[in-house]
Amino acid sequence: MRRYGIIGTGAIGGYYGGRLQRAGYDVHFLARSDYHTLQTQGLRVDSVFGDFVLPQVQVYEDPRQMPPCDVVVVALKTTQNGQLTHILPPLLGEHTTLVLLQNGLGVEPELAAQFPQATLLGGLCFVCANKVGPGHIRHLDYEAIALAEYGPHYAPQGITPRVEAIAADFTAAGIEIQVKPHLLQSRWEKLVWNIPYNGLSVVLNGQTDQLMANPATRILVEDLMGEVAQGAAACGCEITPAVIAKMLAHTEAMTPYLTSMKLDYDRRQPLELEAIVGNPLRFAQRGGAILPKITMLHQQLQFLDTANLRS
Amino acid sequence: MRRYGIIGTGAIGGYYGGRLQRAGYDVHFLARSDYHTLQTQGLRVDSVFGDFVLPQVQVYEDPRQMPPCDVVVVALKTTQNGQLTHILPPLLGEHTTLVLLQNGLGVEPELAAQFPQATLLGGLCFVCANKVGPGHIRHLDYEAIALAEYGPHYAPQGITPRVEAIAADFTAAGIEIQVKPHLLQSRWEKLVWNIPYNGLSVVLNGQTDQLMANPATRILVEDLMGEVAQGAAACGCEITPAVIAKMLAHTEAMTPYLTSMKLDYDRRQPLELEAIVGNPLRFAQRGGAILPKITMLHQQLQFLDTANLRS
Repeated sequence: MRRYGIIGTGAIGGYYGGRLQRAGYDVHFLARSDYHTLQTQGLRVDSVFGDFVLPQVQVYEDPRQMPPCDVVVVALKTTQNGQLTHILPPLLGEHTTLVLLQNGLGVEPELAAQFPQATLLGGLCFVCANKVGPGHIRHLDYEAIALAEYGPHYAPQGITPRVEAIAADFTAAGIEIQVKPHLLQSRWEKLVWNIPYNGLSVVLNGQTDQLMANPATRILVEDLMGEVAQGAAACGCEITPAVIAKMLAHTEAMTPYLTSMKLDYDRRQPLELEAIVGNPLRFAQRGGAILPKITMLHQQLQFLDTANLRS
Repeated sequence: MRRYGIIGTGAIGGYYGGRLQRAGYDVHFLARSDYHTLQTQGLRVDSVFGDFVLPQVQVYEDPRQMPPCDVVVVALKTTQNGQLTHILPPLLGEHTTLVLLQNGLGVEPELAAQFPQATLLGGLCFVCANKVGPGHIRHLDYEAIALAEYGPHYAPQGITPRVEAIAADFTAAGIEIQVKPHLLQSRWEKLVWNIPYNGLSVVLNGQTDQLMANPATRILVEDLMGEVAQGAAACGCEITPAVIAKMLAHTEAMTPYLTSMKLDYDRRQPLELEAIVGNPLRFAQRGGAILPKITMLHQQLQFLDTANLRS
């Protein structure tokens, strides 16, 4: 039975970590602001797939008190990744696997450089969940994770035994997992959604349904998705028109949704701007693609992020 | 001594009309919300070039009571131009000149089609003025008008006697006038400023100085100006890099400024979106130019304008 460390007990870490513990895995949570509540009252998950409470969780304020883990799930916002330099060393054994449940692009190469001994997996979460209070997660919809192994410069690794082993744990915990052969491809696929909706929801102060209902932004969303496809192509990945059409239809059918970037913005938290927009733009540009609308979105978000954190 | 009609007694109509009356011209103002104040208390202009009050002005609520005029100055927002069909006929004599003191592109062809008997001039105002209360204009800086005659499809007319005659009146009233040979060129030149600053000030809730101080939006402003230059070129006009450099330097030296579109937005008035962004985009596209960032700005502004008027 593998031992799991969960770095960051917000919506993502709390939800998936809670499911793993509930299934009997040995799970150790790192928490900051919620440490005290988790320590005294445990973890509460209100989920569309069934509510549950874990009255006792193994929770830590200080990573140096945590045991080495077989799998360390990084569920921080990418804007906090600078802290991993200090957080991860005590948790890493000789065969530890790092699973990055984070959005965007370019997060793995930095960690791979810092922790060359660790196996690195990237995971894309397709989940609507929020932390609604200390130690209290509300899970609204979906829960699938697309999981793939990272190799140098995002070279496709195929479906590795390591990915299959961890997918088996998640599956045993009742979490829907899709194992994937090509992490970069999976990351670009998620960006088809993340770039337009996260970006425009902040710039235009709008929900997904409002962006889809207005004919002008409906076209803009599709234009931006088209540019994401160009960026993917410049990195040797492929986003087909069918993927874009499916994403649009899917979002139109969705409940009105405030994106994670909009939630961060409204809470005056730093935006995951570089992971979700800046890095993909730079990857695409290195591959020769010129993406004027994503460039403009990035410029606008930089302005708004700065103004938001200053005020 | 020519008789002037002023359609719209806001910042532009009030300021220039006030100056003309003060210089002794026979000026007739059409006003709506301010009619009563203007009728009883006259017009007050607080100007950096010297305050003045006109205790009595010839003001009308109903254009049918107005006399035919030699010159009719249209100083409405372009979003109100639909009203001109009803407003203008009583004011037009056999030799009336219409002077459109309005922003943007594409406003003259519509009026020319409706009133083929009138000579049509276009004027671009370089002025910082606001209406701060009924019948009360505050003039903060600048006042120059670039004036040119309109010909079918914006064909260049050179500096016509009609332009010179009206320029002479404005000059006599102490207003700085630049006579111009090519209206379309003058309109595109003003769009170099108007498109980026009006558009971004609304989308990003920022003042000119903030847009210039942030490195990301500083580049975006310049990118958008570059697209305006491409649009101008597609219409046979020329915006040189020197013009763009001058505009940027000029704006950096300016007092922080809320653009007219931002003022309209904050007052929940319709934005002059088609005159300032949509029409230039269509003119440029007809000439074969593809302007992705201005297209995106237009899409964003359409969303915000709709949401703003609805809320």
